[in-house]
Amino acid sequence: MTPNDAYGHLLARFRRIGLLDEAGRILHWDAATMMPSGAADGRAEQLAALRETAHGLLTAPDVGEWLAAVDDGALDAAGRADVALMRRRRLRAAALPGDLVTAISLADSRCEMAWRAARAADDFATVRPLLQRVLELTREEAQATGEALGLAPYDALLDAHEPGLAAADCERVFAALESFLPDLLGAALERQALRGEPLAPRGPFPAARQDALARRVMADLGFDFDHGRLDLSAHPMSVGAPDDVRITTRWDEADALAGLYAVVHETGHALYERGLPAARRWQPAGEPRGMAVHESQSLIFEMQAGRSPAFAVFLAPLLAAAFGADVAWGPENLHRLVTRVRRGLIRVDADEVSYPLHVVLRFRLERAMLAGDLALADLPGAWRDGMQRLVGAVPPDDRDGCLQDIHWYDGAFGYFPSYTFGALMAAQLYDAAARAEPEMPRAVGRGDFAPLVAWLRRHVHGLGATRSWQQILEGATGRPLDVAVFRRHLEARYLGDG
Amino acid sequence: MTPNDAYGHLLARFRRIGLLDEAGRILHWDAATMMPSGAADGRAEQLAALRETAHGLLTAPDVGEWLAAVDDGALDAAGRADVALMRRRRLRAAALPGDLVTAISLADSRCEMAWRAARAADDFATVRPLLQRVLELTREEAQATGEALGLAPYDALLDAHEPGLAAADCERVFAALESFLPDLLGAALERQALRGEPLAPRGPFPAARQDALARRVMADLGFDFDHGRLDLSAHPMSVGAPDDVRITTRWDEADALAGLYAVVHETGHALYERGLPAARRWQPAGEPRGMAVHESQSLIFEMQAGRSPAFAVFLAPLLAAAFGADVAWGPENLHRLVTRVRRGLIRVDADEVSYPLHVVLRFRLERAMLAGDLALADLPGAWRDGMQRLVGAVPPDDRDGCLQDIHWYDGAFGYFPSYTFGALMAAQLYDAAARAEPEMPRAVGRGDFAPLVAWLRRHVHGLGATRSWQQILEGATGRPLDVAVFRRHLEARYLGDG
Repeated sequence: MTPNDAYGHLLARFRRIGLLDEAGRILHWDAATMMPSGAADGRAEQLAALRETAHGLLTAPDVGEWLAAVDDGALDAAGRADVALMRRRRLRAAALPGDLVTAISLADSRCEMAWRAARAADDFATVRPLLQRVLELTREEAQATGEALGLAPYDALLDAHEPGLAAADCERVFAALESFLPDLLGAALERQALRGEPLAPRGPFPAARQDALARRVMADLGFDFDHGRLDLSAHPMSVGAPDDVRITTRWDEADALAGLYAVVHETGHALYERGLPAARRWQPAGEPRGMAVHESQSLIFEMQAGRSPAFAVFLAPLLAAAFGADVAWGPENLHRLVTRVRRGLIRVDADEVSYPLHVVLRFRLERAMLAGDLALADLPGAWRDGMQRLVGAVPPDDRDGCLQDIHWYDGAFGYFPSYTFGALMAAQLYDAAARAEPEMPRAVGRGDFAPLVAWLRRHVHGLGATRSWQQILEGATGRPLDVAVFRRHLEARYLGDG
Repeated sequence: MTPNDAYGHLLARFRRIGLLDEAGRILHWDAATMMPSGAADGRAEQLAALRETAHGLLTAPDVGEWLAAVDDGALDAAGRADVALMRRRRLRAAALPGDLVTAISLADSRCEMAWRAARAADDFATVRPLLQRVLELTREEAQATGEALGLAPYDALLDAHEPGLAAADCERVFAALESFLPDLLGAALERQALRGEPLAPRGPFPAARQDALARRVMADLGFDFDHGRLDLSAHPMSVGAPDDVRITTRWDEADALAGLYAVVHETGHALYERGLPAARRWQPAGEPRGMAVHESQSLIFEMQAGRSPAFAVFLAPLLAAAFGADVAWGPENLHRLVTRVRRGLIRVDADEVSYPLHVVLRFRLERAMLAGDLALADLPGAWRDGMQRLVGAVPPDDRDGCLQDIHWYDGAFGYFPSYTFGALMAAQLYDAAARAEPEMPRAVGRGDFAPLVAWLRRHVHGLGATRSWQQILEGATGRPLDVAVFRRHLEARYLGDG
């Protein structure tokens, strides 16, 4: 077996694994959109079989032999990236003993089920012992994975969501955000109060018209309906394969904008998937980078472009055409509607100013829980204290406090930071795109997103996972992650004129 | 490893294979109903990966060791059926060398593609060399599979669709059908002409109303929408898993009955899948028997119950409610509408009297082609001669002649006979059900299908593949397949009063 043979074998094996993963993603979409209710148990079994089969194909001894035999030096850069990703996936898969994987899976699903009831009943005490078990197993997982990858335990958790993201990055970035964001939020609220309330558009907004409008906007953004779909589900999502990207949303007939902006967000994810390097499909290097980069692509559309004054110019006449003339659909009023800020309790409803503060809170708390510095009995109080300090709002109960997110209860620690790294990257990438293509922001006002999408294709989408998130960002913007760009963006939009 | 251990290992492996098969079936449904057009190539790759992965899990050496170690005598009857089915599946999977499998797959897909163009252009000559290649490879396949299973080559092809169905069964049954069906068709046409045309209902029939009516009828037939769906596709089908049975149809706004009867047909398939033994899910013995038994379950609803006078009593008021009062929706007129016969050219549009003659023609021709007694150059002429002799109608071109079916061109030889064995079994099973439950036919008239479904659950659905098709039929009806029952059914309906 020559080193090239070994690479060929590896490509064939990871192609198979990639295809099984895609099959699983379509079944996951189906479960959220189409599947009859009585099929849930069987679907869980089908997905587990796909996952376990792929795991078996990844951890089989032959993969280890091929990885030992392959000569990285004989490969080009993308090939080396491929092999590095293959090694990393195999190390991750092999890091945890089978009985730990089973214990984690069981503890996570028990805790998640208990969380649903606990949240509904505002009863943290009931779910606490189950979360304690999840926490202990997460520590074991972080320890074992970290040893296999040569990472500190918490870094191993972060790395599962965005490879290469480290606690040191989080400490630096979150300290900076903590230093100015609470004041910025206060100042934005003051200015908002001085301006008075924007006009509220008159509803209801029929779901069928929201749907038609969303499809029009998706098409303008560059969504390719020959290679994707829009459907309804309980939670908006984007899932699929590069030639079959499916996004979902939900319609609230009292709110013309919430479902639409979810669609804009998910369309950003979809454009990323669709723009991945076609020649590297079913190779690790052809997959999307991590979750932070993915989130940056959705937030470029939802937040950077989507709440710019130019976007309001584009969207205002479409809203009037869809729902009837209304002075509230004037571009300036619309821009004020989509840039309102508030001291809210719920992360998923938060505006772009306060959202990072919700994430900082979760980062601080999960670090303390994992380190053993915060007992679970003290979590509700620590949550309230943190909310007061960071967001300036205190939840009246745990339902809108430490029980609000499914994460943690389903075992996802090290997950929240990716959201905010995505938001910062989005600001930095959009800023760089606007500098590189000065016509781009004006084109947005005409509903022409081609210059933006082309720039993203070239600098982000088309790179797949051949580079790290840091390399992608530096390559596209000329510098490392810079909190100042995000700060300038927020100050311009919420304290200035733009 | 004890013999019981071996059976346990086998069950775990076939459970995994069954789950991957189910995943593939949902992806197949998705491809026909939901998938965006541009995803077809990727979907083909995903399905191939699932198929090849399942094939690898089936042909792995450990399965051979477990099958050698298992002690059939220590198992109950269902366990023995399981092991026998496992052995058979493995023998089939291992019978063909890998390069033959690849050659067949390539030749089939090339020929199928050429057939689409050839059919549109009425150009048999162009596709002929590709069909010749398919035929030659089918001979090799039949030879190799037959040797592995101890069957004659053509029996090996039949057995792939309905295990245990043999050429000798076909010869006996088809000779009997040939002896009386052409005359019966002629007599039915004479009686029909004497009665004059039934009244034609006034259309159009809006698709939304057809859809609502079909869902009502499905629910009455016993379709469980918590475990299934109805959607649209180019060709009606039934696919899924026992807890997730999905059927499709298409609507013709000029015809209120075609789409509805397709739904009734597919609902029969769906009820069979849903009624399979739940405790044996993901075991070979818990799967549906072969294609002939499956077809019998659809035809019991579409043909036996569905075109009975009682069904017209049930359906007539529903049609009037859906599409407006119309004298054509009187029960007697409706019954005449759904029991019209004709000397038609197209198998898929054929009535239940002439349909078997289309199958007999294909059986005779494919036997002769495989034996080398009929050169492909002579196929169009032999088709016309056969149609004249059997159906009394001659196609004006090959498009409506030997190019009409995709089968053969996609490599399916030994497939057509299952349709007619299904039709005969349907007649015999319905007759037995009506004798065992004398209230059943009257219940159909009230839209109460529970007695029929319960009888089928007990005598067919719930047996899965624990028995052969012959054993199922004899167990349910007290005798082997009897052409006379089918003949009596047709004579009563088309020459008599019922």
